[in-house]
Amino acid sequence: MKKLNVGIVGYGFMGRAHYNAYRKVNNFFDLKHQPVLKAACARSADNAKAFADKWGYESVETDWRKLIARDDIDLIDICTPNNTHAEIAIAAAQAGKMILCEKPLALNAKEAEKMVAAVEKAKVPNMVWYNYRRCPAVVLAKQLIDEGKLGRIFHYRAKFLQDWTIDPDLPQGGAGLWRLDVKAAGSGVTGDLLAHCIDTAMWLNGTIDKVNAMTETFVKERKHNLTGKIEKVGIDDACAFLARFTNGSLATFESTRYARGHKALYTFEINGEHASIFWDLHDLHRLQYFDHRDEGRVRGWRNIHVSDGDQPYMKNWWVPGLQIGYEHSFVHQVADFLQGLANDQPAKPDFKDGLATDYVTDAVLQSAKNGQWEKVKKVK
Amino acid sequence: MKKLNVGIVGYGFMGRAHYNAYRKVNNFFDLKHQPVLKAACARSADNAKAFADKWGYESVETDWRKLIARDDIDLIDICTPNNTHAEIAIAAAQAGKMILCEKPLALNAKEAEKMVAAVEKAKVPNMVWYNYRRCPAVVLAKQLIDEGKLGRIFHYRAKFLQDWTIDPDLPQGGAGLWRLDVKAAGSGVTGDLLAHCIDTAMWLNGTIDKVNAMTETFVKERKHNLTGKIEKVGIDDACAFLARFTNGSLATFESTRYARGHKALYTFEINGEHASIFWDLHDLHRLQYFDHRDEGRVRGWRNIHVSDGDQPYMKNWWVPGLQIGYEHSFVHQVADFLQGLANDQPAKPDFKDGLATDYVTDAVLQSAKNGQWEKVKKVK
Amino acid sequence: MKKLNVGIVGYGFMGRAHYNAYRKVNNFFDLKHQPVLKAACARSADNAKAFADKWGYESVETDWRKLIARDDIDLIDICTPNNTHAEIAIAAAQAGKMILCEKPLALNAKEAEKMVAAVEKAKVPNMVWYNYRRCPAVVLAKQLIDEGKLGRIFHYRAKFLQDWTIDPDLPQGGAGLWRLDVKAAGSGVTGDLLAHCIDTAMWLNGTIDKVNAMTETFVKERKHNLTGKIEKVGIDDACAFLARFTNGSLATFESTRYARGHKALYTFEINGEHASIFWDLHDLHRLQYFDHRDEGRVRGWRNIHVSDGDQPYMKNWWVPGLQIGYEHSFVHQVADFLQGLANDQPAKPDFKDGLATDYVTDAVLQSAKNGQWEKVKKVK
Amino acid sequence: MKKLNVGIVGYGFMGRAHYNAYRKVNNFFDLKHQPVLKAACARSADNAKAFADKWGYESVETDWRKLIARDDIDLIDICTPNNTHAEIAIAAAQAGKMILCEKPLALNAKEAEKMVAAVEKAKVPNMVWYNYRRCPAVVLAKQLIDEGKLGRIFHYRAKFLQDWTIDPDLPQGGAGLWRLDVKAAGSGVTGDLLAHCIDTAMWLNGTIDKVNAMTETFVKERKHNLTGKIEKVGIDDACAFLARFTNGSLATFESTRYARGHKALYTFEINGEHASIFWDLHDLHRLQYFDHRDEGRVRGWRNIHVSDGDQPYMKNWWVPGLQIGYEHSFVHQVADFLQGLANDQPAKPDFKDGLATDYVTDAVLQSAKNGQWEKVKKVK
Repeated sequence: MKKLNVGIVGYGFMGRAHYNAYRKVNNFFDLKHQPVLKAACARSADNAKAFADKWGYESVETDWRKLIARDDIDLIDICTPNNTHAEIAIAAAQAGKMILCEKPLALNAKEAEKMVAAVEKAKVPNMVWYNYRRCPAVVLAKQLIDEGKLGRIFHYRAKFLQDWTIDPDLPQGGAGLWRLDVKAAGSGVTGDLLAHCIDTAMWLNGTIDKVNAMTETFVKERKHNLTGKIEKVGIDDACAFLARFTNGSLATFESTRYARGHKALYTFEINGEHASIFWDLHDLHRLQYFDHRDEGRVRGWRNIHVSDGDQPYMKNWWVPGLQIGYEHSFVHQVADFLQGLANDQPAKPDFKDGLATDYVTDAVLQSAKNGQWEKVKKVK
Repeated sequence: MKKLNVGIVGYGFMGRAHYNAYRKVNNFFDLKHQPVLKAACARSADNAKAFADKWGYESVETDWRKLIARDDIDLIDICTPNNTHAEIAIAAAQAGKMILCEKPLALNAKEAEKMVAAVEKAKVPNMVWYNYRRCPAVVLAKQLIDEGKLGRIFHYRAKFLQDWTIDPDLPQGGAGLWRLDVKAAGSGVTGDLLAHCIDTAMWLNGTIDKVNAMTETFVKERKHNLTGKIEKVGIDDACAFLARFTNGSLATFESTRYARGHKALYTFEINGEHASIFWDLHDLHRLQYFDHRDEGRVRGWRNIHVSDGDQPYMKNWWVPGLQIGYEHSFVHQVADFLQGLANDQPAKPDFKDGLATDYVTDAVLQSAKNGQWEKVKKVK
Repeated sequence: MKKLNVGIVGYGFMGRAHYNAYRKVNNFFDLKHQPVLKAACARSADNAKAFADKWGYESVETDWRKLIARDDIDLIDICTPNNTHAEIAIAAAQAGKMILCEKPLALNAKEAEKMVAAVEKAKVPNMVWYNYRRCPAVVLAKQLIDEGKLGRIFHYRAKFLQDWTIDPDLPQGGAGLWRLDVKAAGSGVTGDLLAHCIDTAMWLNGTIDKVNAMTETFVKERKHNLTGKIEKVGIDDACAFLARFTNGSLATFESTRYARGHKALYTFEINGEHASIFWDLHDLHRLQYFDHRDEGRVRGWRNIHVSDGDQPYMKNWWVPGLQIGYEHSFVHQVADFLQGLANDQPAKPDFKDGLATDYVTDAVLQSAKNGQWEKVKKVK
Repeated sequence: MKKLNVGIVGYGFMGRAHYNAYRKVNNFFDLKHQPVLKAACARSADNAKAFADKWGYESVETDWRKLIARDDIDLIDICTPNNTHAEIAIAAAQAGKMILCEKPLALNAKEAEKMVAAVEKAKVPNMVWYNYRRCPAVVLAKQLIDEGKLGRIFHYRAKFLQDWTIDPDLPQGGAGLWRLDVKAAGSGVTGDLLAHCIDTAMWLNGTIDKVNAMTETFVKERKHNLTGKIEKVGIDDACAFLARFTNGSLATFESTRYARGHKALYTFEINGEHASIFWDLHDLHRLQYFDHRDEGRVRGWRNIHVSDGDQPYMKNWWVPGLQIGYEHSFVHQVADFLQGLANDQPAKPDFKDGLATDYVTDAVLQSAKNGQWEKVKKVK
């Protein structure tokens, strides 16, 4: 088994999800590589140390440039705020490191284009952490679509609804809240949540041709945690858009952090000529499937408990009926990345796919500004 | 179209359900007979008059014996408390009337045997209002079982859960509350609710061989509305029993009026070798169906919205997707009764079927007393 | 009890729903008026006769002008295709008849304005059959919103999904299929299905300020049943739009007849500051309610079985736990209309409300053509 | 942080669940002890080696006696078939080791009594792996009951339904199939599945007073994998029983491996005077809760997504809305065990609790034989 030395930048919510995946992957998957938790990097030495201890990292760094400069690091994992992705990734590429970068790839497509150029030039393996592609139920959806079970696709609809920012006293900026600060995040729900919906959608249903969007910021000002002052909120609290896919299907997308009762309700539904599919992150171990070819009297939405050995990834886990959870999507993503390395068939989504999503979110934000349909740029 | 003159005894909740069915049936079903609301009978002339006006009955009676004696009445419908069924039905049979009797057929099997003897002697059409057999989803279940879709049956489980008698200040006896008075009702949940479960179960899965039961009366004394005194409660508040069907399948049955959160949750589930079925009165327009012969990856419980023209009774109603409700089960029962009359193929469940259910409830109550398995008597 | 003589034009699916409502309403509601089924009107005398017999209409007409001219008719009920509403309604108003008109009020707002002018000039009671306002669960939603339970509203989303026109061999035009013929229907899903969503939305959440829409016709040509020729399809098969309400909330609306697995899935969800509401026509007897003021540990969407006496309309029906269905919304609408007559407080939605919805659908169709946001005209 | 050296016997499905828990617990919980994967024991050296490599065990043993004899082992974890539990556990206790034993504690209560005596004499910390007590939703149920939210309990019902042994060609005995061999398992669904239901039930609702059961073996003979011969099946394929709790509530329990459509459907429902609770292993991250004290119009079953920081264990995992799965119940059990060690407040369920469950299962099997109510022995 080859060792693969991982250096990770960032230690927040996403950092923990990644650490856990690296630690677990070889216990459940037969692979040719084994990630080694080599170094954790955080600006504060104390934070870095605490996390390294908790997760068994061998060393710590407080400057990501030093981490990248180390010879004993094969792979840089970026789980810092969005506005730092480009700089770190480009430097890592130039140093010849493999790169796994949190989503969205960058603050905007312009930055993302440079990141793609950097990894292409350096020819380093690269991936973006759009982890929901790795939920077994979502992979099952992909299989069904690719096998033609749905036939011609007429409709796609996706939502990602949360309710955690309704309180106007919630501040913006700083640890845990940088997602509300437009300088760190680039946008609000569009880059944070709709980016997931768009990535899944294009994977399942192909490219998006054009979009027409609206956005809203319900709470106009919030105290900023870093400056301590009341500042204008620059992000979008909510965003909805109409879209037309290249394959002729129609779509609606919506995301908000103002939907009471929904913590992380990412859902998508696809309606095809013969069959339809529905998935819901709140019950991620299930897939809803309707097949019109079933006999008329007993046609109905099938509520599939995706926990059986013939369903994607599930033979690696427990026994039928016993569900996995959120964290397993990250384990699967690492497993697929390592498999790709071993087979020389790079796993997806790579930086180019990340850029494709950024093209869509850029077009969405542009359309929300000018009230017009916007064509989506295509990745070359 | 032949007129069929109906005289109805009783005007409570069930009376209204029956009236509505007679009024509606010819608007939605093509039949050779038309029920005519000829006479409503209640002990109080005022009540009888009020109901007759509301529902368009042509005349009123205050003595059921007079109603039965009338030449212009073809059919007697009995919707009075259980302790009056036998006397009225036997007299009606002797007078040569058709009889539709509310369930349970009688206070006990001994009475019910006499009623069967009376209708057999008089050769009059007869039926018991076990209306849940007429919910389209339940009929669909019956079709699937009869077609062999389930294969060998292993398990049957049924529940009927309510929560309306938890308050110990609720009195017993009198209008609307006679179901709590053992003299009027014969038993509590066993005759009222489990009788429904048992009737459906034997229709779907054949006869029951033996039972083993427990009952409980949680509130031991209640004020009696007729005497005004605190009296011992004689009914069973809750009853659960194990059963073995003649076909070798195992069953559990349970009913209570002490299950918070359930207003009228009648559910049944049947597990067969190849497929399973689940139904729930709270969503009576749906059937849950699992077919193991579906491809493994996309196997799941199908949530069937029973509202399409190829599903039982539904072509007579609205368009696909638009649900019917509780009252329609009664309309269907009248429609089937009239169809049976026209075709000379009497509709079920008849008094003999009602007796079969009474044999089971008698055995259940007996077993609850002696703590032993009780064989169920078979109808000859 | 005052008699109210009803003359009805049309005898299709909607005709049956209305007939049933008139027949039933006095059995379940205490009212000062009793509808009398006086005359049924259809172009074919045979059809008119058959329906009159089935439903107990006293007479038939084959020309709606003659029906309107009759002195013994108090109320004209219009359930013919959309392109006939205006002419019949205006003539009925001029003859001083009360008018109940099927939705949408007219082919377009221009026609609808004339209808409003006609009923205002004639001062005749008038109503539009947006029946979903009368589902008990929807009325409960209205109560909760009006009581301020939701607080400030952030989001509204509604869908109406069907799948009955996916087959390209389905013809357009003629009986049962006029909804596919743009000349008879005016539009496709926009006027047929979204009109319902819009009417409910404005009732619950106030007026809509502007919209941005897209439409699609998936099957471009179909055989026309009246001409026998393959003709271009003029209706919209699918329509989705973004909207902004006057109260500042954001909305998405979508309808299609190409969503496999959905027969008549009308759903809406409203997200407020404190609480959220969800409703689904496929289980119309339920309301989903989330209240953030519940204690954190046990907060969850409450699945409310709307069948109890303290819930809208339900004390008039059966007992708790026993559901009503689609047809009851029409009974409620007639009951409310008659109540309004008796109290001199006209029931809603009246023609003005119908016009308001037509202004929205006109703006939607216009936006779909020009790809721009369209302001919605307000009713004066 | 103190090291706690773990030696584990067995490497099957349960072994993996335990290994994973030991590896993960310190990453997510702040504890004073850290389990060290010291030695894995299996009869085959190759198997032991393979598993040790995969999971990072430092050494292997092929004889559990040697493992117990090692000085560097603090804790013996038993995940071998039921018929070996007693011997290993008693030896481990005599050697002064802490013991974590898979459920059921023993083949029968007689063996279990000896195990209890052994750990009591040796005064070693001990626990049984009834892991479902550690699902956050189940712990939430426990909190609600203990706080009196339900009031007096009327009903308890639990089921554990599977469908994996319907095929008569499935053999019995040997690796992965020892659960079908009565010699290795002691009983069928009673000890395997109902034991879980009983443990949870007594934890939530107190002791069981008496039971009345039936069992069935649907497939009478199966090929035995160890002998190669067709042998009589000695286990119960299905078992259902009535029970009365000491607190006066009534219960039904049922388990089977012949329920098509259910992989591991462990559900329980508790009905109290004021509130009810429902849980389902197939969606283990949810709890259904009905509170009658909610306002009447908006009363409904609350579907609680147990993923928020104020819900049991959840602040240690991800963010609200992101579910955990089956394996996390084991992590929680280890965390609680270690917490108990640190605080000198031993975690439950210990061997005495395991014995209490064995008393119930013994009574159930006895009742199924003699068809009578059986009193349940109480742990002293």
